[in-house]
Amino acid sequence: MPNIQTCYSTELFSLFEHHHKIVVIIDVMRATSAICSAFENGVKKIIPVSTVAEANEYQKKGYLIAGERDGFKLEQFDFGNSPHDFNNPIIKDKTLVLTTTNGTNACNLAKNAKQVLIGAFSNLSALNNYIEQQNLDVLLFCSGWKGKFNIEDTLFAGALANELLQNKNYESDCDSTNAAMQLHHIAKPNLIDFVYANSYRINKRKEDLKNDINYCFTANLTKNVPYLSNGELIV
Amino acid sequence: MPNIQTCYSTELFSLFEHHHKIVVIIDVMRATSAICSAFENGVKKIIPVSTVAEANEYQKKGYLIAGERDGFKLEQFDFGNSPHDFNNPIIKDKTLVLTTTNGTNACNLAKNAKQVLIGAFSNLSALNNYIEQQNLDVLLFCSGWKGKFNIEDTLFAGALANELLQNKNYESDCDSTNAAMQLHHIAKPNLIDFVYANSYRINKRKEDLKNDINYCFTANLTKNVPYLSNGELIV
Repeated sequence: MPNIQTCYSTELFSLFEHHHKIVVIIDVMRATSAICSAFENGVKKIIPVSTVAEANEYQKKGYLIAGERDGFKLEQFDFGNSPHDFNNPIIKDKTLVLTTTNGTNACNLAKNAKQVLIGAFSNLSALNNYIEQQNLDVLLFCSGWKGKFNIEDTLFAGALANELLQNKNYESDCDSTNAAMQLHHIAKPNLIDFVYANSYRINKRKEDLKNDINYCFTANLTKNVPYLSNGELIV
Repeated sequence: MPNIQTCYSTELFSLFEHHHKIVVIIDVMRATSAICSAFENGVKKIIPVSTVAEANEYQKKGYLIAGERDGFKLEQFDFGNSPHDFNNPIIKDKTLVLTTTNGTNACNLAKNAKQVLIGAFSNLSALNNYIEQQNLDVLLFCSGWKGKFNIEDTLFAGALANELLQNKNYESDCDSTNAAMQLHHIAKPNLIDFVYANSYRINKRKEDLKNDINYCFTANLTKNVPYLSNGELIV
């Protein structure tokens, strides 16, 4: 029976076997939510890069570049990483280069997995339906915050693990998965309030990020499951 | 106002500032529970060492040595790391050398902190009372399991954070602390059942470890707060 494990941050990733698994990259606030938004708005490809310097090189070659550091848009970039930035006809059929503090780094760490998928509340059911058909072990890879655990990625890991385990075709022998499911279970009735109460970082920016927060914690806005293919994200 | 942060495993420790803080070492199953038991039973000092080879060297010099690897007692050792192993008059006024898979490693990683204390359910209130008098930032350092998150250490971190925050003299800006408190809150009414349901590793050995489990999840069996002084644990 395939197994579900959960890695809470990039710092822990080397402790998990991933080569034979589906790895789901999770960066709810905001990289993976933004990637889902970009594909929903017609982007053709997204190239995730780990550094600002790499993104700048692509910009010189004419690519649109998007990204943030410490949660803020970079000055010379075409877009930040708000999901709303990509609700813009200019991205249709284009290739976008994206660099973020945590999420794109996670993509690159996981690139040798059997499959690398992008997960966010906005594609929760689509992701669940797709994974169920694969019969592979799953590693839910929370990007976290600068190597550390964060609450929002863990809640999404718990939401997805709950959905997969409801079908009884998966098992969990992993404390991290179980804790994530417990946290999602208590958070679910008031998900955003739970995040405000438990994430100092998000709560501090609740006015500034209000629209993004509403988007990032809303389930099933898209049927797309972006995946990594030769270092590029496509659907 | 002093702050409470929580580190979920040895693998994450380097991400946390610790030099100006009280670091509480947590290895509920079983190193820190066993250390508290040993002091309750009159041991004079415990020297935590990271490797079996170091412990063997001490044994050649006439020290009593205790420890485990992968949760099992080592053949040539005088004791394992069950709290019940130390309910033995032979240890009274002796110096014990201890090596475990996770807990003693955590002790050594944290040795340059302002203060290093040993935390277990068995000394929860004593620890809370001691820390409250210090007016220092606190890092709750869960030993985890081989670098990964585990549920039992996290539950203890949540229990202690809840007690400290009830006094309003502390604050938490740390997702890990908040998640630990949430988990302890739901686990508290049936703590051991919650552990069985969420720790595959403990559940698998529930018969074998029954006495230890009862001991390790019982609060306030001792008033001792062991602390590290020049590489040795004393009270």
